[in-house]
Amino acid sequence: MGQLRVPGPTPCPPEVLQALSWQMINHRGPEFGKMIHDVTAKLKQIFQTKKDLYLLTCSGTGGLEAAIVNTLSPGDKVLAAPVGAFGERFTSMAEVFGAEVIPVRAEWGKAADPDEIRRALQKEPGIKAVLVTHNETSTGVTNDLAAISAVVKEFDKLLLVDAVSSIGSIDLPVDKWHCDVTVTGSQKGWMVPPGMAMVSVSQEAWQAHAKAKMPRFNWDFARAQKYLEIGQTPWTPAVSIVFALSVALDMMLKEGLSNIFDRHARVGKAAREGVKSLGLSLFADERYASNTVTAVSVKDGLDVKEMLRILREEYQIVLAGGQQSLQGKIFRIGHLGLITEDDIKEIISALKEVLPRVGA
Amino acid sequence: MGQLRVPGPTPCPPEVLQALSWQMINHRGPEFGKMIHDVTAKLKQIFQTKKDLYLLTCSGTGGLEAAIVNTLSPGDKVLAAPVGAFGERFTSMAEVFGAEVIPVRAEWGKAADPDEIRRALQKEPGIKAVLVTHNETSTGVTNDLAAISAVVKEFDKLLLVDAVSSIGSIDLPVDKWHCDVTVTGSQKGWMVPPGMAMVSVSQEAWQAHAKAKMPRFNWDFARAQKYLEIGQTPWTPAVSIVFALSVALDMMLKEGLSNIFDRHARVGKAAREGVKSLGLSLFADERYASNTVTAVSVKDGLDVKEMLRILREEYQIVLAGGQQSLQGKIFRIGHLGLITEDDIKEIISALKEVLPRVGA
Repeated sequence: MGQLRVPGPTPCPPEVLQALSWQMINHRGPEFGKMIHDVTAKLKQIFQTKKDLYLLTCSGTGGLEAAIVNTLSPGDKVLAAPVGAFGERFTSMAEVFGAEVIPVRAEWGKAADPDEIRRALQKEPGIKAVLVTHNETSTGVTNDLAAISAVVKEFDKLLLVDAVSSIGSIDLPVDKWHCDVTVTGSQKGWMVPPGMAMVSVSQEAWQAHAKAKMPRFNWDFARAQKYLEIGQTPWTPAVSIVFALSVALDMMLKEGLSNIFDRHARVGKAAREGVKSLGLSLFADERYASNTVTAVSVKDGLDVKEMLRILREEYQIVLAGGQQSLQGKIFRIGHLGLITEDDIKEIISALKEVLPRVGA
Repeated sequence: MGQLRVPGPTPCPPEVLQALSWQMINHRGPEFGKMIHDVTAKLKQIFQTKKDLYLLTCSGTGGLEAAIVNTLSPGDKVLAAPVGAFGERFTSMAEVFGAEVIPVRAEWGKAADPDEIRRALQKEPGIKAVLVTHNETSTGVTNDLAAISAVVKEFDKLLLVDAVSSIGSIDLPVDKWHCDVTVTGSQKGWMVPPGMAMVSVSQEAWQAHAKAKMPRFNWDFARAQKYLEIGQTPWTPAVSIVFALSVALDMMLKEGLSNIFDRHARVGKAAREGVKSLGLSLFADERYASNTVTAVSVKDGLDVKEMLRILREEYQIVLAGGQQSLQGKIFRIGHLGLITEDDIKEIISALKEVLPRVGA
């Protein structure tokens, strides 16, 4: 059959693929207006939020840039807690826009430590915001966002959350956990192609927005809000991605949030147990192992590149390698969105056949 | 039959709609790598350029923001020649990022005057770049970009071109006209849904990039170049839009550039003559009337909103209203991409029936 099992883009259900081929409509007409209101309302249900929410035409990275430039000013002190490549990207981005970033790093494969975040906030009272990755796609770690948020809100700081590969797949109650800006991308658990970021914005984020001085135009949440009120986006949106979202969100709400989270938990567990049954070890601290992506450590001598090639060409199974310093040291199985335990079984069976051929 | 005749999104051919429903692939795998190289090469043919060219996941506005932040520094003096809403947007964007913008405005409906641009460049030798809209979608004016470019290059300034609704539909030889950054959007003459901007970058633009200090991360051309070399984009791209482009570009190259330009010229002329045959006047100076969008002036008493509603609901023909100060004063017929003279005839016939019902 073949399986695309990178941690995004994820496979699209047939109904979603069908919606992608709907003919274009006027993005400033009544039909699109109804659809964007409907999609936004359904996204809010899955974000578990009554806050504002916008669709931006960009990757998750664009959404994260939007989170930064809408709430911060050059010179602002910001605490960042990177635990992998995507956390480092979020950190660099804040630096590029002139924030003074105080990093609290964890070793890749580990989770961010709420106590270390507390100590850093105590030490530096001038910190304005905290940048956190909920699910670090490069290492397969899910941070304890509830605990981190409790610390951040103890100090009454703004909480900007990279939830690109978590929300919609694993529980992230945005309002309950006081997330001020929460960013995801259409190509993750949403079962839709890449092209849009979805971003929630709290009242506290709006207060920060009013004072924030980083330059913003394309990403400006105020423009997004002004146009959403008339059923539009400020700039031409990726209309076919909105079509796809409208169908995928109905499927997700029909399955139900807790069923989706349970399924991802079962699938994540199956992936980890399957990997261990092959004699391989998990890269991530298992207490924080992600239910959307599993990173697998490889021993010296195992040719990851060749393994990925054989899986792709002979089994039509597409897994991901490691990024940056983890290249050649891990491979990753994406298991978010349209996925079942049977899909994992198929991947583990294929790995069982391929591993001996590549030095395991 | 129904026709979407706003100046973007444009209707997609059936082959393109089909490509949109292709299942997702790994955006960091060999199949996508081959496709992005192929699409980039074909886009360069239509841009008539041997310069660099990148695909960015965003609207045309995002592409214009990229043009600015990749080449300019805060405090840079920039000449802008806005002739309508999109020119004003480009101007505001440069101001938001800290450029000192010297505007040379023309009345809406008129074209930019190369001699005025020359005088402004003579008066202010410190100007670094000139921002020009090739085809102003809000007024239906096509500027004389060849003449403007000749002036800009007389003074050896950087030329940043909003070609969102021109390139691919009307002639814009990027290299011959020395355009340093040229921006378009997938939803225009390309017959593909919105979601991607395509941007060409000259050697002079790269020299400016090396010194430019506006903050850039998501939009950074250097990252785009680094990843294109390995058949990727720095951030997850709108994969299905690339699928669609791969099909649409083949259709365009099969038709041939000069045939495409001729067809748009014939269609544009048919639109203008049709409008005049109804006793209506063109909003744009006819010497500069656009072959991709026609703006039609309406007399007092004509209810544009009601006219657009009747056309949409009874004729399934979707035209556009006027933007900003032109709301209620003009309506616009988009005629770029997938369009023939017969489509225009159908629109004119419908208008002939509807106009008397709305006060004409």
